[in-house]
Amino acid sequence: MAPRTYEWIQRKRDGGTLSAEEIRAFVDGYTRGDIPDYQASALLMAIYFRGLDEEELAAWTRAMLDSGVHIDLSDLPGPKVDKHSTGGVGDKVSLALGPLVAACGVVVPMIAGRGLGHTGGTIDKLEAIPGYRTQLTVEEFRRQLARCGVAIAAQTEELAPADRKLYALRDATATVESIPLIASSILSKKLAEGCEALVLDVKVGRGAFMPTREDARRLARTMIGIGRSMGRPVTALLTAMDQPLGRAVGNAVETREAIELLQGGGPVDLRELTVALGAEMLCLGGVERDLAAGRQKIEAAIASGAGMERFEEMVRLQGGDLSALPRASRVVPVLAERSGWVAAIDAREVGLAAMALGAGRSRKEDSIDPTVGFVLEVKVGDRVEAGQPLAFAHLADRPGSEGPLRRFAGAFHLADEAPPAGPLVLEEIS
Amino acid sequence: MAPRTYEWIQRKRDGGTLSAEEIRAFVDGYTRGDIPDYQASALLMAIYFRGLDEEELAAWTRAMLDSGVHIDLSDLPGPKVDKHSTGGVGDKVSLALGPLVAACGVVVPMIAGRGLGHTGGTIDKLEAIPGYRTQLTVEEFRRQLARCGVAIAAQTEELAPADRKLYALRDATATVESIPLIASSILSKKLAEGCEALVLDVKVGRGAFMPTREDARRLARTMIGIGRSMGRPVTALLTAMDQPLGRAVGNAVETREAIELLQGGGPVDLRELTVALGAEMLCLGGVERDLAAGRQKIEAAIASGAGMERFEEMVRLQGGDLSALPRASRVVPVLAERSGWVAAIDAREVGLAAMALGAGRSRKEDSIDPTVGFVLEVKVGDRVEAGQPLAFAHLADRPGSEGPLRRFAGAFHLADEAPPAGPLVLEEIS
Repeated sequence: MAPRTYEWIQRKRDGGTLSAEEIRAFVDGYTRGDIPDYQASALLMAIYFRGLDEEELAAWTRAMLDSGVHIDLSDLPGPKVDKHSTGGVGDKVSLALGPLVAACGVVVPMIAGRGLGHTGGTIDKLEAIPGYRTQLTVEEFRRQLARCGVAIAAQTEELAPADRKLYALRDATATVESIPLIASSILSKKLAEGCEALVLDVKVGRGAFMPTREDARRLARTMIGIGRSMGRPVTALLTAMDQPLGRAVGNAVETREAIELLQGGGPVDLRELTVALGAEMLCLGGVERDLAAGRQKIEAAIASGAGMERFEEMVRLQGGDLSALPRASRVVPVLAERSGWVAAIDAREVGLAAMALGAGRSRKEDSIDPTVGFVLEVKVGDRVEAGQPLAFAHLADRPGSEGPLRRFAGAFHLADEAPPAGPLVLEEIS
Repeated sequence: MAPRTYEWIQRKRDGGTLSAEEIRAFVDGYTRGDIPDYQASALLMAIYFRGLDEEELAAWTRAMLDSGVHIDLSDLPGPKVDKHSTGGVGDKVSLALGPLVAACGVVVPMIAGRGLGHTGGTIDKLEAIPGYRTQLTVEEFRRQLARCGVAIAAQTEELAPADRKLYALRDATATVESIPLIASSILSKKLAEGCEALVLDVKVGRGAFMPTREDARRLARTMIGIGRSMGRPVTALLTAMDQPLGRAVGNAVETREAIELLQGGGPVDLRELTVALGAEMLCLGGVERDLAAGRQKIEAAIASGAGMERFEEMVRLQGGDLSALPRASRVVPVLAERSGWVAAIDAREVGLAAMALGAGRSRKEDSIDPTVGFVLEVKVGDRVEAGQPLAFAHLADRPGSEGPLRRFAGAFHLADEAPPAGPLVLEEIS
């Protein structure tokens, strides 16, 4: 095996391509432990510099997908469509979107992630609900989808184990930030969960992992290309992640905001993005012909309360008790030091401040406090007067919040003139 | 340690530079085993793509040098100058050059290598002499230099252990072919042996590791730059390695050819290169003012027999018995199938044919047969008639030589016209 691995590294290093058989032999050999970490990391770094072409990407994704179980949902009636976000601040869309789309007749098998760094994670937000079980077996996941059409659960050991092993190596060797490796990592997990089609929410801006719109576009196109190679339609929305999405940043506060949305309220931008992504999912699932009709159907599922009912059913089936959603011990205002127009709210800084309060993890093994976070009183384009609240901080009953609060306040940029309004959905790529 | 290593990989990946302290911490940490192979190989691949600048190179070389003992020769009278060749076919220059230069008053502390792949190694050639000990302790090496001014020995565990560990990793991860890594690897070992200045013989052509003249020039300039940073003058000759150097390719046959040279005979090209490199060493050592005077002095040391005397003394002091130099069981001619002018003799193919006979190793652990090899009867530019010998093959008393002999014969390209004569020394860089 070793001499072949050497040749693969050398060929990729020199800009050549690997065959589907060679990629499968590498991924399988590495997952089994036959290929050592030091050869794998050299190959990953060569891929960082040289990339993977469309055929290599499809083979790489398929090999990671085939390293674990494929959840087979073909016996469930109806289309199966999922959504994936590349990660942002205040992004609680999945909590409302899954139940809304399920209420419109599309099955939503959603394997979601935890927060890391400045971004939050859907699983952490759901775990703020006492009793909510995110660790489902494959059988439990299937059974719940059959009963209520939506399940949101954490990744298990059985799905794409090759990706998990490779991701841990990438995380230690500065090979995470590679568009083909990011794209194949996401898709191998998503395709394992049994969805037939996928909508991507690719975040762009200060609070996103993709720094530039061009990189975000490349990531979207790469994932669409892999989906095409594998016969699974993928569409993508590029969306702004400069300021936090909605008003709540934290776990219980975000879950509460998702519920507000399902009850017909909630912030305008959160609702706009949820409806836009839902419309894409309904069209991909074939239950609506065009996006306008899809939007109407999602709006109707909000207005009728069908989405909220589905959410409550999902939570109940996964063991959660919504009435016990916890609240912070203390809620204190963060005041504006001057009057002005909110010109920018640095989403990354807000995310890091929330993490520092205990809402997120700086290392994988850290535990989080579901109650802490921020709820913004103003968003970009709003007017605020000196001494009025920018936000309310939800704090734990312990010292150490001064630093995070200062960091949070520093994320707000007040100006003498109103900033120009920018769009939330930047472009659609399909 | 790990988070810093991650940051170093990331910075180098992104085209940044590492400080001297960071490079030393990496090299020391890796040699001690604190930094895992998989992070080191990712960094090496990033260096393959991004290179090392002059300061980084000096720091990298110094850190590898400092990982082991520095042989201190400052108490020996006279300048200490060594020569390093990047490896070729039929290159037995060191065997004659070391004693000749020592006979002219420059101490030659030479740590040499073994052959690998199609190229031969000085240590293997000397080991064809029964009893010759190439494994000297540092003390034995010093004592011999004090007595006869020249010692040629194999690398020991004590010299640049960081380079040995990194080289083994590079060899498994397709990161050998990086000019800064090659240059620092060579110089860390050479500077550890106590030489004050160094002449490089950088081979160019089919039988060399550097495929193009431009790459050879870059390697030479890189090593000259490192030498300058470290206060050790380095000069380089770029020399042709398209056909084998001299006529003998093998171990005992090459040692015998080096002796012919020291006795005033031997092939013209071998003598030309030995004199040119010797003149450079005498000038670097300050015992001659210019290359013309240096050449004269080397020629005089051949003519007087002083070089041969020094060679015999070196062999005797290292335990060898020249009178017992073995010969092959069978010597058979390889005949020309047509008449013509020798237009080319592919040095790489000749080297691989000799290796296949048993003169070299395809893997590090292979053992070699000192007696086998080839002695050319014709060189490029010579006329040969059909049925006349191209060379004599020196064979062992065992089957299996047909394939190597066919390969060897295939290395000769006969043409109807005499080829243009090309220079042996292509350029001098200093």
